[in-house]
Amino acid sequence: MEPLYYLTSIYHLCIMSHINDTITALATPPGQGALGIIRVSGSQTIPIVNKLFRGKDLTQVDSHTIHLGTIRDDQNTIIDEVLVSIFKGPHSYTKEDVIEISSHGSQYILQKILSLLVTNGARLAKPGEFTQKAFLNGRFDLTQAEAVADLIASENAGMQQTAMKQMRGGFSDEIKNLREQLVHFASMIELELDFAEEDVEFADRGGLLELIEKIHVLIRSLIASFEYGNVIKNGIPTVIAGKPNAGKSTLLNALLNEEKAIVSDVAGTTRDFIEDQIYLDGIAFRFIDTAGIRQTDDKVESIGVERTLEKMKSAGLVIYLFDLVNESLASIDEQLRDLNTSEAPYLIVGNKVDQASEELRERLSKENAVFISAKERDNLEELKQRLKTFIDVPSQSNVVVTNTRHLQSLQQTDEALNRVVEGINMQMSNDLVAQDIRQSLFHLGEITGEVTTDDLLENIFSKFCIGK
Amino acid sequence: MEPLYYLTSIYHLCIMSHINDTITALATPPGQGALGIIRVSGSQTIPIVNKLFRGKDLTQVDSHTIHLGTIRDDQNTIIDEVLVSIFKGPHSYTKEDVIEISSHGSQYILQKILSLLVTNGARLAKPGEFTQKAFLNGRFDLTQAEAVADLIASENAGMQQTAMKQMRGGFSDEIKNLREQLVHFASMIELELDFAEEDVEFADRGGLLELIEKIHVLIRSLIASFEYGNVIKNGIPTVIAGKPNAGKSTLLNALLNEEKAIVSDVAGTTRDFIEDQIYLDGIAFRFIDTAGIRQTDDKVESIGVERTLEKMKSAGLVIYLFDLVNESLASIDEQLRDLNTSEAPYLIVGNKVDQASEELRERLSKENAVFISAKERDNLEELKQRLKTFIDVPSQSNVVVTNTRHLQSLQQTDEALNRVVEGINMQMSNDLVAQDIRQSLFHLGEITGEVTTDDLLENIFSKFCIGK
Repeated sequence: MEPLYYLTSIYHLCIMSHINDTITALATPPGQGALGIIRVSGSQTIPIVNKLFRGKDLTQVDSHTIHLGTIRDDQNTIIDEVLVSIFKGPHSYTKEDVIEISSHGSQYILQKILSLLVTNGARLAKPGEFTQKAFLNGRFDLTQAEAVADLIASENAGMQQTAMKQMRGGFSDEIKNLREQLVHFASMIELELDFAEEDVEFADRGGLLELIEKIHVLIRSLIASFEYGNVIKNGIPTVIAGKPNAGKSTLLNALLNEEKAIVSDVAGTTRDFIEDQIYLDGIAFRFIDTAGIRQTDDKVESIGVERTLEKMKSAGLVIYLFDLVNESLASIDEQLRDLNTSEAPYLIVGNKVDQASEELRERLSKENAVFISAKERDNLEELKQRLKTFIDVPSQSNVVVTNTRHLQSLQQTDEALNRVVEGINMQMSNDLVAQDIRQSLFHLGEITGEVTTDDLLENIFSKFCIGK
Repeated sequence: MEPLYYLTSIYHLCIMSHINDTITALATPPGQGALGIIRVSGSQTIPIVNKLFRGKDLTQVDSHTIHLGTIRDDQNTIIDEVLVSIFKGPHSYTKEDVIEISSHGSQYILQKILSLLVTNGARLAKPGEFTQKAFLNGRFDLTQAEAVADLIASENAGMQQTAMKQMRGGFSDEIKNLREQLVHFASMIELELDFAEEDVEFADRGGLLELIEKIHVLIRSLIASFEYGNVIKNGIPTVIAGKPNAGKSTLLNALLNEEKAIVSDVAGTTRDFIEDQIYLDGIAFRFIDTAGIRQTDDKVESIGVERTLEKMKSAGLVIYLFDLVNESLASIDEQLRDLNTSEAPYLIVGNKVDQASEELRERLSKENAVFISAKERDNLEELKQRLKTFIDVPSQSNVVVTNTRHLQSLQQTDEALNRVVEGINMQMSNDLVAQDIRQSLFHLGEITGEVTTDDLLENIFSKFCIGK
């Protein structure tokens, strides 16, 4: 099976040369805190930390135990009292010996300990290098490694659940299983090439087509899930539009305030990531900067609907607000005509329903509008229910692709498989079919990291934070 | 010994009512990082965390061990894969059962876990509440608890070493020992009061005076160390002054750049706390905002030396720069006269030494000036050596008081003891002497926390960070 060698081997030999380094980094966010954690991984972890640590002899302790002691510099000055946690390889994150030093969260102390570790033989880790080691040491595949970064970056339940599913396996097993079967067919066809003159057929073409159809169904449902994945990850850019004084700011504040009240129940920690967005079913509706539109509230008539329409183009969703008290029927008709040309999906909302003119209300009923009072916070619940209908939840697959790299590889696999099917149906030569199968295998393998390149790994892990 | 009761008891009974709560908080700095730690402490720690944790049964594991598992919500949804570290009381920071949950450093995940802990019976901790528990449970005294906050805030070797010494005992033992002896004398004198009619003398006045002298020596050396402690903690506010174009900005940049180069050797973590300051012998020379002065570089002649002199008043040290090339002898004489009226200590520096006029150089030599070239970075080392001579290191005591609260209590003890001595020498009535001794005992006890009030504790711990 020589020709298949490069399909299944792992292409990261160059990186391997550094994999034996013992690396260290701050694993907690920078800044002052109750405690800070420094992580060390590599074959020299225990001897290096043992040199700085006064307490138990760390070469003699069990894995998964915690020890109190002090870190001292070469003048025997106490830098800090610390807790040291030991994880002996392969029972650690990186499958190497790992130590976590938990010190007081002073940047001076943390930096000092890091510099002592470096002086004693550790090297400062690159971003994501711990996870890269975990991947290279076979702890998990590439999609799972990528999910770690997604998990850390997750800001809501949707992102967290998607990343968690992916980290715990996601679609990897299914892809690996199907790829293995495809490798089998590929090797049969390569074998046929060796016996080309004898016109034998080791690979059952019917079985191959069946397998390809299976793979197609999987990857197409994964490709289809990406749009939803993207919405989970990035939210839906939402514009609240309408004439000046229609109540846009009032509505925005009403939606945001309610959200803030719910979230700030628990801890001050959440403040940072609530901006102009609300979550419905775990999906962020991000209100894109409507400062331009809001200014028109001040300069009332000076800037027209044009500017609003400009904003709407970049939106994933438009909430278009009508003032049911002060607008004329003619003006509403005109705005509805403009809205019809909008590229973004939109939801029509009639505001100030408590004092609405019956005529205007009737007109908007025909447009399937939601009627609310932003000021009185009337009927906001129905508005939210209607907003949720704009989330396209994929029905088939319960795993969701959120990663552009995965999407690309899936699409490339799809194309290569199409060529395989076409080749078989058109009874093309085995050379060409074999080449297209190799292409599919390559792209499928890229997803889970069975096939990788230095560039690919560099590209993936450089986006991680330091210390992970 | 009834009357002494209030001298030795610990006055925090009101706080005790909450001490049985199981508390929780984020212990790592807010923001995204490789990992985040949530700390839980209290009698219900293990049952509460056990409800959320899937992995080993945490009620069955040993202290100081680490366990991998998942945290799940009440729908059994996995919130994160975590490591759980167990510390069973009294072998923990608070002397209660403590668990640290180490999760991925996503604010969403951390907040979610916190809210699950709260739902299951924990309470969000107040700032410093873990350390307050540690104090109330007798893990350490009040000066040591305060040193924990100082350690976390430490930004340089001086602050770190001072805080570390204090956290590991510092002057507490000596004060406690002397206070105990004083309590003995106090009880003797109180006893004399009970036998007032019989004119007995249980307390040896000579021994008492000797003891007071010992205490006086200790607390006066501690009081004297405060100035240095303050310099360690807050640095020396330093103004670089001089006429426009004397080279002030060039000198500042030369000093700062060199420092930056040294520090940024190790890690990006240091960037945050280098501003306009340099460290010499662990002491920060903080360059106070000389924007006003620097502006005069632009408007060259419009603003005079007056403004510089204004700035100098608030300085702890003035580096006064003369331009050895372009200034006149008359101008230098005039500036030197002004300098002589300066309240702050100052160091005279002759700049542009490489092209200096011999006459000007000779004039400044008489003023004990340092000669440099800021632009060529010539002789900066000597300048630094001279700056160091402005640091007053106390010779007697190797512990340093940095805390204003301690200083106040020491001063109040000093005054009360003076009154005791005076009372004995003037053969005042035992009532009055006993009252002054009580006063000294009270203030001495305040330092280490043998005497505390709710207000005092509230005041101390509210300045801690959350999670410590």
